[in-house]
Amino acid sequence: MIARVLSAELPSHVGERVRVAGWVHRGRELKSVTFVVVRDRSGLTQVVTSGPAPSEETVVEVTGLVTANPKAPGGVELTEPVLTVLGEAVVPPPFDLYRPTVPATLPTILDSAPVSLRHPLLRARFEISAASVAGFRSALDGLGATEIHTPKIVGSATESGANVFGIDYFGRKAFLAQSPQFFKQAMVGVFERVYEVGPVFRAEPHDTARHLAQYTSLDAEIGFIADHRDVMAVLREAIAGMLSSVAARSEAVALLKAELPEVPAEIPAIHFAEAQKLLGGKDEIDLAPADERWLSEWALREHGSDFLFVTGYPMAKRPFYTHPSPEDPNYSNSFDLLFRGLELVTGGQRLHRHADYLAALAQRGESPEAYQSYLAMFAHGMPPHGGFAIGLERWTARLLGVANIRQTTLFPRDLHRLTP
Amino acid sequence: MIARVLSAELPSHVGERVRVAGWVHRGRELKSVTFVVVRDRSGLTQVVTSGPAPSEETVVEVTGLVTANPKAPGGVELTEPVLTVLGEAVVPPPFDLYRPTVPATLPTILDSAPVSLRHPLLRARFEISAASVAGFRSALDGLGATEIHTPKIVGSATESGANVFGIDYFGRKAFLAQSPQFFKQAMVGVFERVYEVGPVFRAEPHDTARHLAQYTSLDAEIGFIADHRDVMAVLREAIAGMLSSVAARSEAVALLKAELPEVPAEIPAIHFAEAQKLLGGKDEIDLAPADERWLSEWALREHGSDFLFVTGYPMAKRPFYTHPSPEDPNYSNSFDLLFRGLELVTGGQRLHRHADYLAALAQRGESPEAYQSYLAMFAHGMPPHGGFAIGLERWTARLLGVANIRQTTLFPRDLHRLTP
Repeated sequence: MIARVLSAELPSHVGERVRVAGWVHRGRELKSVTFVVVRDRSGLTQVVTSGPAPSEETVVEVTGLVTANPKAPGGVELTEPVLTVLGEAVVPPPFDLYRPTVPATLPTILDSAPVSLRHPLLRARFEISAASVAGFRSALDGLGATEIHTPKIVGSATESGANVFGIDYFGRKAFLAQSPQFFKQAMVGVFERVYEVGPVFRAEPHDTARHLAQYTSLDAEIGFIADHRDVMAVLREAIAGMLSSVAARSEAVALLKAELPEVPAEIPAIHFAEAQKLLGGKDEIDLAPADERWLSEWALREHGSDFLFVTGYPMAKRPFYTHPSPEDPNYSNSFDLLFRGLELVTGGQRLHRHADYLAALAQRGESPEAYQSYLAMFAHGMPPHGGFAIGLERWTARLLGVANIRQTTLFPRDLHRLTP
Repeated sequence: MIARVLSAELPSHVGERVRVAGWVHRGRELKSVTFVVVRDRSGLTQVVTSGPAPSEETVVEVTGLVTANPKAPGGVELTEPVLTVLGEAVVPPPFDLYRPTVPATLPTILDSAPVSLRHPLLRARFEISAASVAGFRSALDGLGATEIHTPKIVGSATESGANVFGIDYFGRKAFLAQSPQFFKQAMVGVFERVYEVGPVFRAEPHDTARHLAQYTSLDAEIGFIADHRDVMAVLREAIAGMLSSVAARSEAVALLKAELPEVPAEIPAIHFAEAQKLLGGKDEIDLAPADERWLSEWALREHGSDFLFVTGYPMAKRPFYTHPSPEDPNYSNSFDLLFRGLELVTGGQRLHRHADYLAALAQRGESPEAYQSYLAMFAHGMPPHGGFAIGLERWTARLLGVANIRQTTLFPRDLHRLTP
């Protein structure tokens, strides 16, 4: 059997008989001729045949003669075809996959994800997502970081008592990890610089456009930093790596009309207290979504940047392991990265001295017993360190300008959805 | 402040004052001189000083003069040092991290993982593990596959009713996914070729050296195959990619005295029925661990290969979605890959026609209702496809010749262990 050729490769095979394979993207029966457009992972092939076209989404294999035709997609088409059905479509798709836009509502798309994601526009989002992850890893690899894989089942719901999923673990109570925070800190003690790409779980009781019960977290943690600004510099490299990898997927970028942002060599940063002044003399301990939007617009106007670091969030709004600012202990060595109006990344410097952890827990009225396994590592010598976490689905949604995070999740899990 | 230099970079800085940072690996106070060996992510630096050495695992920063000394590790040492403590070690490590072998039992190592994994021998295993994953991805990327991220929370325990962890999902019953099987098949319908590196969960009630409650699965699924042999060819590329990436970590390989296997251009394969004959005319439906060992030795003897495919396992031992052999429907288009005496990978061709799924479920007396969301995709046209899953921890253990899979898991989860 002759080797399969991809649609995108056809222009270099004009005059040859080749074999293509894919899904019947569209069939059009005219009076004297039938056009069958076959979709494979690289693009579309027009097959010129006669008689009835197979129903859409049927999987076919076609051998035929590659013939130049300036009017056909890619400038070539297959003539004199022999068409074989490999996999029948016995039910029509929930909407026409060949239309240039997606004529379906989000629930319809999600309910029928295995077929609806075949629409080139929907599929392209997940090419961008995959490229982003590859770029993240490549940037961290380039900085000498080591990839780790940590437990998603944990013995105590330490980081935040609320919003955790409970598991029956061999008759004991356990929980799904909300983040690899403690493990990645521990691995700084081993590898200095680590990253993990993996699922994290939040029992989010809210049904919003930006929360999921499971999402993919791009986590990094870096040792031997001076302070949070070194972490911000690593994050800048990670984002630049993600965008450079995305840019290389030029077809998906063009299809989605994605406007890729520039990453400034140094992303502008504003201190939380300064941001409060800009926002009209506010005195809050966190930024409201409207504040994030306003600050993003300000950063674009003043600095021409789609990205803005807000640094020094009040300690009261940060977890107990956050390193306070040496200048004013009410503020922290932490940051958020805003991207086009939305908080995309949270990060900062962590405490690294055992005594500081004990003091921080005591100050919050928490018992060190609950954190025993976590605290132990700090008794063994830990360097100043910090890190961040990027939500993959949120990143892709913001980058592509889609409104709902479910649109950048293959099979979302939320308050109501457990299938497909 | 002068930029930090890594231990491994020192030989190119002889005569300069530099700054290094790391953990006090070992302190030795002699009569007239004190040697402090500092460990960083790249290796060791000997610091020549006087007076008491900081306690082991203290994190220090040292500025000093890089001085040639053929007797020192790497041929250089730091003299005229100024030493600053960055993070105190207030508790000694559970065993000496500087000894060339690990003087501790597995429970001690696991109980104190955040510090015991700092031992260069234990740390190196996870460099090999990270390199393996990078090589897997690189091989699959090279074959045009797309990386995916799928749900770890599923609505029904379909693939195997037993050994699943139950979750309280917003008041409903849900389960932790035992594999991304159904999702990766669905994504073949979208991307043709996909892979996922992620956690899978098995409520293994057995306390053995080769089972974990969570492990990292390297999953691939490939569309438009002729049969399972095309999947085996992809697996061969994946394994070769993993080994080539591991080989590049030459220091870790040398430290661990790892003997990396050759991957034959075509890995030898034996049909299950043929294997039964070789094993002395057995008539079983699966291979016992002793059979796997015997067959591996046979492959090494007969073919000079550390790898052996066993193909055509009886349908009775394979999941319902397995494609039967066209020659004899009692056997399947499936395979296991044995590596040095152990089953390392399971894979095969899957059914791809909707009617075949309905028939397979009916034959096993199972109702299609339980699989409704899974079956739906096959009604929309699916190509012949197949795939495999490699257990990362098992791979690394076998490659490095360590006996217990917990030794290649950062923070293992099993019947008894939920911390650290």
